[in-house]
Amino acid sequence: MDAEIIGVGSELLLGQISNTDAQYISQKLSQLGINVFYHTVVGDNSKRLKKALEIAVDRVDIIITTGGLGPTMDDITKETIAEFLGIPLELHQPSVDRIENYFAKRGRTISQNNYKQAYFPKGSIILSNNHGTAPGAILEYNNKIFIILPGPPRELQPMFEEHVIPYLENRSSEKIVSRVLKIYGIGESDMEEKIKDLLIDQSNPTIAPLAGVSELSIRLTAKTSRNEDPFKLIQPIERKIRERLGDVVYGVDDDTLESVVVNLLIESGKTIATAESCTGGLIAERITSIPGASKVFLQGIVSYSNQSKIEILKVSKDAIAKYGAVSRETAEEMVKGIIKTSGADIGIAVTGIAGPGGGTKDKPVGLVYIAVADNKGFLTVNRYNLLGDRKRVQQSSASIALDSIRRALLNKKID
Amino acid sequence: MDAEIIGVGSELLLGQISNTDAQYISQKLSQLGINVFYHTVVGDNSKRLKKALEIAVDRVDIIITTGGLGPTMDDITKETIAEFLGIPLELHQPSVDRIENYFAKRGRTISQNNYKQAYFPKGSIILSNNHGTAPGAILEYNNKIFIILPGPPRELQPMFEEHVIPYLENRSSEKIVSRVLKIYGIGESDMEEKIKDLLIDQSNPTIAPLAGVSELSIRLTAKTSRNEDPFKLIQPIERKIRERLGDVVYGVDDDTLESVVVNLLIESGKTIATAESCTGGLIAERITSIPGASKVFLQGIVSYSNQSKIEILKVSKDAIAKYGAVSRETAEEMVKGIIKTSGADIGIAVTGIAGPGGGTKDKPVGLVYIAVADNKGFLTVNRYNLLGDRKRVQQSSASIALDSIRRALLNKKID
Repeated sequence: MDAEIIGVGSELLLGQISNTDAQYISQKLSQLGINVFYHTVVGDNSKRLKKALEIAVDRVDIIITTGGLGPTMDDITKETIAEFLGIPLELHQPSVDRIENYFAKRGRTISQNNYKQAYFPKGSIILSNNHGTAPGAILEYNNKIFIILPGPPRELQPMFEEHVIPYLENRSSEKIVSRVLKIYGIGESDMEEKIKDLLIDQSNPTIAPLAGVSELSIRLTAKTSRNEDPFKLIQPIERKIRERLGDVVYGVDDDTLESVVVNLLIESGKTIATAESCTGGLIAERITSIPGASKVFLQGIVSYSNQSKIEILKVSKDAIAKYGAVSRETAEEMVKGIIKTSGADIGIAVTGIAGPGGGTKDKPVGLVYIAVADNKGFLTVNRYNLLGDRKRVQQSSASIALDSIRRALLNKKID
Repeated sequence: MDAEIIGVGSELLLGQISNTDAQYISQKLSQLGINVFYHTVVGDNSKRLKKALEIAVDRVDIIITTGGLGPTMDDITKETIAEFLGIPLELHQPSVDRIENYFAKRGRTISQNNYKQAYFPKGSIILSNNHGTAPGAILEYNNKIFIILPGPPRELQPMFEEHVIPYLENRSSEKIVSRVLKIYGIGESDMEEKIKDLLIDQSNPTIAPLAGVSELSIRLTAKTSRNEDPFKLIQPIERKIRERLGDVVYGVDDDTLESVVVNLLIESGKTIATAESCTGGLIAERITSIPGASKVFLQGIVSYSNQSKIEILKVSKDAIAKYGAVSRETAEEMVKGIIKTSGADIGIAVTGIAGPGGGTKDKPVGLVYIAVADNKGFLTVNRYNLLGDRKRVQQSSASIALDSIRRALLNKKID
């Protein structure tokens, strides 16, 4: 089955928002094995939407609309589809009750136009909205499927998960699942070289490498009949890839470097503290963005000035004078200082030149030292020459720092 | 003139990337007074792209394509447009030279298929690409304008600014400019209430309020003939809006709260230091993301554990025992401590409960205290009950903290 996603909303055509709904739905449909052949966006204009529907029914089986389900005169999606198909709109009493209930709960008065949201093309399956007032709908007509969804992602996405995916799965004789391996610390071509034979031989599961800004991932997608478990097809391939790539595979699906680090720390009962110069608090921020970080994160020092390196982290004036604030020696003293000051089991320190200013011929923008240590003698300091603008250097430094902690914990170097 | 943007690329239809090119171009065209009536996305498929072109020439004057200009067989945009219009492709020698030069500079060998990128439909105006190998093109044919652009935003956006905007401006008898007022610390309806009469009476410039996640903005767009200056029409309205809204207008266009704070600090010659608990380094990170922050930012302490509050910030054990780590008293001691420890002119401290765990009936998730002080006696501590998940509470706390510093500096409370 082939699909087209029609976004309805002048705010999309004015560029006020990006069409993230189309991206989200495309990802989900691709995982279900449904081809998305077109995205279309039209404004809140009945004539142009009708034309777009005409074109769509001519070229695909499934037409998914997003947006235009609000209570105002501008919201025309359901009305236009009904008119286009020559079907009347009908009031759906359970939706009336839900809308009245939604307003009552919030102590807000309901206005007459809110009832507009309870009318649907006759024969629709109604999709309840647990995060807003606009229900969605599915309508089968003339061998075409119309799926009518609200625009706001926080309403659309749960509705898609709860109602649309089960509906589409039920119509399919297949089951399709995906698993994403998250990868850090290897280049794209190196990675592909190591799994080349698997990529060439792939069939089911399919193996799709994807390069992000600083990370890589591999999506494994397997397909079986409805009474088998497609994850069973993924397992042996995942095992092979992990054997080839080793510990650059840091997690799966929604894992991030910081979530993996926090979880490893919790599991091993270790605490951590950070001493940051050029990353300016970014490592601490990424660690503390993870729920539960307070169990393992003790303190972070953003020692931007030399004075703060000397006073709080007890970096020696001599080291800074002799080697500079951006040096192997300073990074080493910073990490020893943060362990001493915080009493943490593990410390991480970063000093570097994020730019755009501050670079010299000997110490160019992008030069960064990263030190990891524990309170029992383990210590490494590494030097990096990172590319990109200030933001990129800061982000890359933080990612390398987090990955250094992850590897040290994983390989029991810190014990 | 009406326009359609056609994105070409299977990665868009698979949801691997979002169609940010369409958003960017839509914003720019809207500022030029050109109506965007449709966005379309098709895959790397010549037949379907040709169908999309047929539909587009039938309904708009300007057709802008993005993507599909690469060197591989998959890249079919120019070829398909040429075929669709019945025009041959021609080799553009200056583009050959540029591509050869691009590879030579990077020490990479050029492969035969790279020359594909130097062929264009006969009669095209060639748009040079200073950030990649794929030039763009503009082709006028049969009263329609085809604008052919590369997909990667870092290539497309400078090409659009340098070549496409001047081209479109030249074809227009009008000049259109926009200015965005950035606003923090007032609700959407309060803001609209204060400028209601201006919104009702608007004509030229138009006044468009827009609500973001935690900030508001107002876009003023003015139009004049080509020999006048549209900014002259914006000035009196901007002045009126600023009079009505006062210091909630924190900046214009690309300003952010953190860039405004760093600039105010540089102008006033003041230094700053941060003491963060629930924001986990986010305030320091936002300040140090701004180039030049090292002139004014001395140090940041992420005092996550009570021990770090006591040892580094010299918060009294009594205050924490009696009032708790999340309390007005602790926030006050934290801000005094950071000024003392850092020697900075201004200190900011945040302590709160970001969630999801850690909340109680008396101190629920979202309770945050924010303290600002200088080293001459100025001190305020404010209490907030913030909504949303962990990330939202952290982001809102950091924004309020930055805005508190901004207001204190602006109103000369810190002197």
